[in-house]
Amino acid sequence: MEIDRFQMDTIGKASMLIAMASEKEMPVLLESAQQSGYQVCTGQAGSMEFKKIVASIETAAVNQEIIGSNYWEKHALYHAILESFHGVSRGEMELGNVLRTVGLSFAVVKGKRNIKDGGKDHWVSVALYGTIGAPIKGSEHEVVGLGINHI
Amino acid sequence: MEIDRFQMDTIGKASMLIAMASEKEMPVLLESAQQSGYQVCTGQAGSMEFKKIVASIETAAVNQEIIGSNYWEKHALYHAILESFHGVSRGEMELGNVLRTVGLSFAVVKGKRNIKDGGKDHWVSVALYGTIGAPIKGSEHEVVGLGINHI
Amino acid sequence: MEIDRFQMDTIGKASMLIAMASEKEMPVLLESAQQSGYQVCTGQAGSMEFKKIVASIETAAVNQEIIGSNYWEKHALYHAILESFHGVSRGEMELGNVLRTVGLSFAVVKGKRNIKDGGKDHWVSVALYGTIGAPIKGSEHEVVGLGINHI
Amino acid sequence: MEIDRFQMDTIGKASMLIAMASEKEMPVLLESAQQSGYQVCTGQAGSMEFKKIVASIETAAVNQEIIGSNYWEKHALYHAILESFHGVSRGEMELGNVLRTVGLSFAVVKGKRNIKDGGKDHWVSVALYGTIGAPIKGSEHEVVGLGINHI
Amino acid sequence: MEIDRFQMDTIGKASMLIAMASEKEMPVLLESAQQSGYQVCTGQAGSMEFKKIVASIETAAVNQEIIGSNYWEKHALYHAILESFHGVSRGEMELGNVLRTVGLSFAVVKGKRNIKDGGKDHWVSVALYGTIGAPIKGSEHEVVGLGINHI
Amino acid sequence: MEIDRFQMDTIGKASMLIAMASEKEMPVLLESAQQSGYQVCTGQAGSMEFKKIVASIETAAVNQEIIGSNYWEKHALYHAILESFHGVSRGEMELGNVLRTVGLSFAVVKGKRNIKDGGKDHWVSVALYGTIGAPIKGSEHEVVGLGINHI
Repeated sequence: MEIDRFQMDTIGKASMLIAMASEKEMPVLLESAQQSGYQVCTGQAGSMEFKKIVASIETAAVNQEIIGSNYWEKHALYHAILESFHGVSRGEMELGNVLRTVGLSFAVVKGKRNIKDGGKDHWVSVALYGTIGAPIKGSEHEVVGLGINHI
Repeated sequence: MEIDRFQMDTIGKASMLIAMASEKEMPVLLESAQQSGYQVCTGQAGSMEFKKIVASIETAAVNQEIIGSNYWEKHALYHAILESFHGVSRGEMELGNVLRTVGLSFAVVKGKRNIKDGGKDHWVSVALYGTIGAPIKGSEHEVVGLGINHI
Repeated sequence: MEIDRFQMDTIGKASMLIAMASEKEMPVLLESAQQSGYQVCTGQAGSMEFKKIVASIETAAVNQEIIGSNYWEKHALYHAILESFHGVSRGEMELGNVLRTVGLSFAVVKGKRNIKDGGKDHWVSVALYGTIGAPIKGSEHEVVGLGINHI
Repeated sequence: MEIDRFQMDTIGKASMLIAMASEKEMPVLLESAQQSGYQVCTGQAGSMEFKKIVASIETAAVNQEIIGSNYWEKHALYHAILESFHGVSRGEMELGNVLRTVGLSFAVVKGKRNIKDGGKDHWVSVALYGTIGAPIKGSEHEVVGLGINHI
Repeated sequence: MEIDRFQMDTIGKASMLIAMASEKEMPVLLESAQQSGYQVCTGQAGSMEFKKIVASIETAAVNQEIIGSNYWEKHALYHAILESFHGVSRGEMELGNVLRTVGLSFAVVKGKRNIKDGGKDHWVSVALYGTIGAPIKGSEHEVVGLGINHI
Repeated sequence: MEIDRFQMDTIGKASMLIAMASEKEMPVLLESAQQSGYQVCTGQAGSMEFKKIVASIETAAVNQEIIGSNYWEKHALYHAILESFHGVSRGEMELGNVLRTVGLSFAVVKGKRNIKDGGKDHWVSVALYGTIGAPIKGSEHEVVGLGINHI
């Protein structure tokens, strides 16, 4: 079984796999996602402030034309981002305020919930993967977050 | 590049990949995890009540001897489970109480945070993957959750 | 100044005014909302369980064709409902579980954020107004909630 | 039916109507509230920080003698303010930290829960109405909040 | 130094000490509290549902005349109870819903914030002490909670 | 009954009593805790930012060798600290952001959950006691917090 056959027919799994991909794994996964009809953008953001993560994701998604610059689509993306933060913060949506920092890779994916769906609705998925911990190298463990919204 | 070369040297990514695995992908991923020195158990739980998900995960982890039956290890697992629920519920730790239901696959993994770590500390990771939505088929989208704790 | 000149050119204010309307005030307010181009449905729900409020609002909105029966629109409505519950519960999305009950009037409104907006985007607004308190008559005070989502 | 007959016999509805009032509607509503025996103060506050909204409301309420300057009454007002923030923030009591800003009108009202109540208890109600959104003009929608406390 | 000299001049410390008291320690502490001018009631409540804890505390406080049966005072007590639950639940106000149970001793104390205060304001303090854990004997650890409100 | 016979055979009560101790009470309580086999450190922290409280407690606990400097033990302490903050903040883990400040005494205790326990597990308990309020002298009331974790 080859990695390019890693099942990528749902938007959430597609975005999580891409967010977690190592440099070596990325090209194959991006190609699979495109073959499934998904639009994808990726990036990285490390910060003690969630607002910087929001800005990084929004900028990447608008620049790479995953979402338009109208408020409607940005509202959809924004709430998907907030939802993904819950997986990362696990209780208090705080980073530096409780003396912790994150280093995250993100993937924003737009398309069908399931590529076999017949409807004309589109969804946006924001997946986060990285580490959270004290602002001291080595004092951290992994976190993930996923937010999915209609767009 | 083949799926069994999918990078599995950190506990969080290992548990997320296994929780998201299709039936076809599972055997290769489980073998990779074992080669990385991780102890793994998996299962499925669908419910409108978080308490049933807790019970399913705890029972599987104790029965398959990922954790011992002493309170100390169960305390570690319990808090990892609660943390993983934040990614799934994204704000209110409620299912049926706000008229929604989940169908989840879970993976519990024990071992090093990173297989290259020299220390003697062990960690437990609880990964959840599945869907959340109204109790009507088709009215759901994907969710993930990940909780990691020292053990 | 007459009540039918009460400003109803934004979706949130329109829905809040209707949710708070007395029987006598309702007809004028509904007419104003329609003149502003808004689709409106109203109802009442009293319960110690949020899931019953969700069901009442969803049923009313689908039956009165404010939203379609596809998942996409129900997802938009559902999240607007959850957001409106935050105003009502103010911290813990719990009713009977912390021994309190609500009696609520609701209004679901669909249309422009502002009737002067030129765009083609539509929004749904869920407004709640009523009382919260102990399950003993007289032991309650007023609450409101408002959730707005793109649709 | 005239607007000055808009029902104003409960503290929560009185404060919400005043907070939502346009410049043109305000004088009639304030007069109605006074006729109902309510003490009212109003103001506006726009910020990316909740602490500035707290300060604006507290200052207005003390200066206009809705509440005294003793700790007891300030404690009552403070908790009513925090409760009203839940309706505005809907999950995370964060503004700038998650890259959003609010522009709010507020009304603080003191008096009976219901003007027909015979008891000698007094209550304070804090109503908020305005917009929340990205710090870019046009990227916002309406929000409301209401907190009521004994005083 | 004897236990009856244990400092009991503030309402929070008085209520916490009494809630944590062993059977042997209780009489001396209750006497100290009375000497400080505090009204006290105590009780115990074990449950997987917060609503039963609310009911136990409210019933005890009304029966022992710490608070009157009017809504105003019950509102003060209710919010002090909810605040004390945050210390016990530490994130999600859930017990049985996340498969955990509590066994708690409680103390409700009414009086001055500090016995040296000159003002005429009165406060109510709810202190909780006991254990939280899985519904299996031995699988639990201690918790405390404290809520203080003006009355 | 003398204060040195105040029951100190459980880690939570031991840490709460020490956190609440006046200067005069402290020596006897510290001696009792040591006799029970507990390792204890204490300190004080006043701030409008939780991150400064985290830093004060972590620094004290590492310097006084209650915990080692490895990540595993710091992870245990960090989560006990976060749990104790829930008792203090009672809903929103915010201080200056909602215009309030705390002045806290803390105690960190390591040892058995109960000194009669036979197992070889160790736990860490973080107890907080002090005041919360507006940044104006006299406008505050007491708070407590307690977090217990396996180590």
